[in-house]
Amino acid sequence: MDPLYIIKVGGNIIDDDQKLKSFLTEFAKIQGKKILVHGGGKLATKLAQDLSIQQHMVDGRRITDAETLKIVTMVYAGLINKQMVAQLNALGSTSIGICGADANTIVAHKREHPSIDFGFVGDVDKVNTSMLLTLLNENINIVIAPITQDANGQLLNTNADTIAQEIAKAMSKNMDTTLVYSFEKKGVMRDVNDETSVISKIDKEAFTKLKEENAIFAGMIPKLDNAFTAISAGVSRVIIGDAIELSMLIKGESGTTIH
Amino acid sequence: MDPLYIIKVGGNIIDDDQKLKSFLTEFAKIQGKKILVHGGGKLATKLAQDLSIQQHMVDGRRITDAETLKIVTMVYAGLINKQMVAQLNALGSTSIGICGADANTIVAHKREHPSIDFGFVGDVDKVNTSMLLTLLNENINIVIAPITQDANGQLLNTNADTIAQEIAKAMSKNMDTTLVYSFEKKGVMRDVNDETSVISKIDKEAFTKLKEENAIFAGMIPKLDNAFTAISAGVSRVIIGDAIELSMLIKGESGTTIH
Repeated sequence: MDPLYIIKVGGNIIDDDQKLKSFLTEFAKIQGKKILVHGGGKLATKLAQDLSIQQHMVDGRRITDAETLKIVTMVYAGLINKQMVAQLNALGSTSIGICGADANTIVAHKREHPSIDFGFVGDVDKVNTSMLLTLLNENINIVIAPITQDANGQLLNTNADTIAQEIAKAMSKNMDTTLVYSFEKKGVMRDVNDETSVISKIDKEAFTKLKEENAIFAGMIPKLDNAFTAISAGVSRVIIGDAIELSMLIKGESGTTIH
Repeated sequence: MDPLYIIKVGGNIIDDDQKLKSFLTEFAKIQGKKILVHGGGKLATKLAQDLSIQQHMVDGRRITDAETLKIVTMVYAGLINKQMVAQLNALGSTSIGICGADANTIVAHKREHPSIDFGFVGDVDKVNTSMLLTLLNENINIVIAPITQDANGQLLNTNADTIAQEIAKAMSKNMDTTLVYSFEKKGVMRDVNDETSVISKIDKEAFTKLKEENAIFAGMIPKLDNAFTAISAGVSRVIIGDAIELSMLIKGESGTTIH
């Protein structure tokens, strides 16, 4: 199977023009087929503030009311997506920007919760890989904003980490898929305050042992749990690390490789 | 050659939810390959007002400063584009939303003018049809927002009528292309105040005669000049008429057909 890189880039990189440029330059360098998944939370929060649209958080999660849905659709699928695409094209790395709604690539439903109304937040039901495969086959990179839709045409705000993971799982049936979570940290660390404590490789057995010994930063556990779920579903490897070291990450020279 | 319909929809339809729904339902009904080009000026103007970003008009044209460029990118390529795509998908008409920047489909340059700085306004240099042909070949409709980029990755605000025309000219090399300008009027009228004065068919000779006799509404002349330019460049026919009668327009049962 052909290799495929699916790279999620975190918010702090997107908010910093210089870091974003470095990241996109690294992304453009990767040989082969690739998909980039992004969010852009801080810019959305700023636009909401400028428009005096109050943001409601419940348990650390943003409630997406109708006005907030418009904002995230504009910021994620419009501004950030097209700015990234234009920069990649200028770097000679021909790219298309889409969101999950395009060609029904990601079908979702409005989140149901017994007590909290999250508003227009989508949980993923299904990934349709056919258009993604067609575009990759033409050597076009795909940049994906985390907006999806339901069967009735309702747009939904959807977690970008989840989108990256669901696409990776679906694509792994056709391609040798590497999923990269890139952000502003060096990787999975034993001690969150010590950048030299990055664990370079970890498998399920080692992870279980580290958890038992409390020898891993608690905030990393959900990310690792998700990584092992992806691997169980067919993804070849998951890499977690620093976005501006992307080409080193995919060679295993930096960050944490989960296999 | 396979038939292709390229349909430009005007701003007043987009601003009215009910009319937009009727239009998209008509669009979904058209059999065969199709491309939809849209703008969305009034929503962009409203967002600029809400953000207290002053809009400057020179000779009836909007100056696109850096903040206004962000607004049109968000509104056109984000909100309006994805709302249309989601509605079309829900109607069973599988669609992707892109802008001119995606996969370098439309390469433009910043407008040069001896005395007026239009800001980030793009004039079209070239249309790359390869991705459009690939997507149409997969029976995916393409919805295009009028944002382009230059070779350096600068996004540019570009006239939607021009984009529709340039794409039609380029696609006419590969497909039997019909270009439709759909808006809130019934077609080209001899008398702008009389909806029964729609000219159902017009060729170059008849147009010259009507102009000589001053028997045509002056505001329609630039649209017709553009239509004949498109036809000279290989477009099979241009149709001008009412967006909510789209399926009648393409059958020649409504509106004006220029051939």
